[in-house]
Amino acid sequence: MSIVAVGSVAFDTITTPSGRVTDVLGGAATHFSLAASYFTTVRVVAVVGEDFTAEHEDVFKRRKIDTRGIEHAQGKTFRWGGHYENLSEAKTDFTELNVFESFQPRIPREYLDSKFLFLANIHPTLQAAVRLEMDGVRLTGGDTMNFWIQRTPKELMETLRLVNVLLINDGEAKMLAGESNLPRAARKVLAMGPQALVIKHGEYGATIFFREGAFGIGHHPFRAPALPMDEVKDPTGAGDAFAGGFMGYLAAQGEISRESLKRALFYGGVMGSFAVERFGTERLQSLSREEIDARFQVFRELTHLE
Amino acid sequence: MSIVAVGSVAFDTITTPSGRVTDVLGGAATHFSLAASYFTTVRVVAVVGEDFTAEHEDVFKRRKIDTRGIEHAQGKTFRWGGHYENLSEAKTDFTELNVFESFQPRIPREYLDSKFLFLANIHPTLQAAVRLEMDGVRLTGGDTMNFWIQRTPKELMETLRLVNVLLINDGEAKMLAGESNLPRAARKVLAMGPQALVIKHGEYGATIFFREGAFGIGHHPFRAPALPMDEVKDPTGAGDAFAGGFMGYLAAQGEISRESLKRALFYGGVMGSFAVERFGTERLQSLSREEIDARFQVFRELTHLE
Repeated sequence: MSIVAVGSVAFDTITTPSGRVTDVLGGAATHFSLAASYFTTVRVVAVVGEDFTAEHEDVFKRRKIDTRGIEHAQGKTFRWGGHYENLSEAKTDFTELNVFESFQPRIPREYLDSKFLFLANIHPTLQAAVRLEMDGVRLTGGDTMNFWIQRTPKELMETLRLVNVLLINDGEAKMLAGESNLPRAARKVLAMGPQALVIKHGEYGATIFFREGAFGIGHHPFRAPALPMDEVKDPTGAGDAFAGGFMGYLAAQGEISRESLKRALFYGGVMGSFAVERFGTERLQSLSREEIDARFQVFRELTHLE
Repeated sequence: MSIVAVGSVAFDTITTPSGRVTDVLGGAATHFSLAASYFTTVRVVAVVGEDFTAEHEDVFKRRKIDTRGIEHAQGKTFRWGGHYENLSEAKTDFTELNVFESFQPRIPREYLDSKFLFLANIHPTLQAAVRLEMDGVRLTGGDTMNFWIQRTPKELMETLRLVNVLLINDGEAKMLAGESNLPRAARKVLAMGPQALVIKHGEYGATIFFREGAFGIGHHPFRAPALPMDEVKDPTGAGDAFAGGFMGYLAAQGEISRESLKRALFYGGVMGSFAVERFGTERLQSLSREEIDARFQVFRELTHLE
């Protein structure tokens, strides 16, 4: 089944210990869509400026991503610059919102039959509006960040009621819950609306917590570890690639169960691990499903007892 | 098979967000021995002062730990005081080495037939001397810390050649290797001597890296995740309890293979998770093998795909 992804398309300028790239194609919707495209049909909703060329659009089209929802506005595309002193935290050098500042997601009529939706990290009010417009969806995944947790808590609470699976990192979960213990923070976040909460731990993998009774029986969380990586060239977009692998796998299954959510968590980790191997979206553009499944097996064996 | 544990016995004064305890029985050898005692016979080598009473010794005896190697010296037992602002890092308030300052481990003759040895965190020269005296051992596990990595690197290098499995945490591994990438750091540490390296990640579990060809075939590491804990009362000794579960399980199996090392890694996580549930050694004194195996199953299911 197809999935609609709403979020940013950007040009990133990134410095890491491995090097520097300028104005490379990035943005949450881009990383997400490329990662998810190895599992299912992806339809993207975003806004770009006049500097977004046919060559950029071809990155999506080569992965058969539907770009009819990319609005071409007057002005320049969103730009972000950042650097990494250690590879677990980005420091922002500059943010030029440009056309993204007045982004009003417009869902093409042809997208409305999609049953899966991913709301990347944008203003929670925009996330909620998209979700309400896509009233036939079966599963909505969502992301957010510290900025919205601190600046627009009321709007975020409204949005969280409309999201089935929230995907955030440890720090965001603790801030959102106002609670430093992870399982307790998870329970507080689940009480805000989502049926499942995916907490991403970077190089240590991710944990999914379930609301009692959601997607099956049992109250235990599930954890997908990540393979320690020999080389992390550029962590930018790893979390969005994780979400793309997770949501893309689920959409391809159609059926949502505890077991499919567990496998989705592994596929999230797999796509995140590929994303960091090259700068920007380079690695996500050039994968094969065979490579992905081979790494899934490695990740599975990483914790598998006979 | 029995295991000999060499290290500190101490009285700890600990402050955590959950409360404060004064002069409770602690020390690496204590936490290690109690944890390992659920799997096999443990023989402890340590030094205590005149303030170490029969009541303290009973904590060991109730778990059938052989205490003939505990030397009773004139003076006071080693004392450590610390507090936790967050639960992942201890801040030392005071260290009174007392009788531990001149600790010279003496291995009782009756211990010399043990095939498993654990060298807790003491001066690397003492670790090496014990290992050389115990010349019939089949597997030696060892711990160390930043203090020895920085102060006695040459002596530590000598000791690492005598240790089969080194158990340290992320920060120690990176410092020891002078390398911030974990898999690369692991390879560097393995080149110093150990056949296997266990890196403990606190709440995220642990990873075991193997020297090519050691304990079986294959070059992939193995990771045992830990269950996120609802309540961490006191993290003191969690790493030693981890080592106790890991080494205790291995000693009980007798046979060392990749598969037994993987299971040992899970049992390490299990014992570490129990240790933090109460202050001091309280939880490690009162467990049952049934509780331990039940948690092993929970940890296993935590990452198990059907």
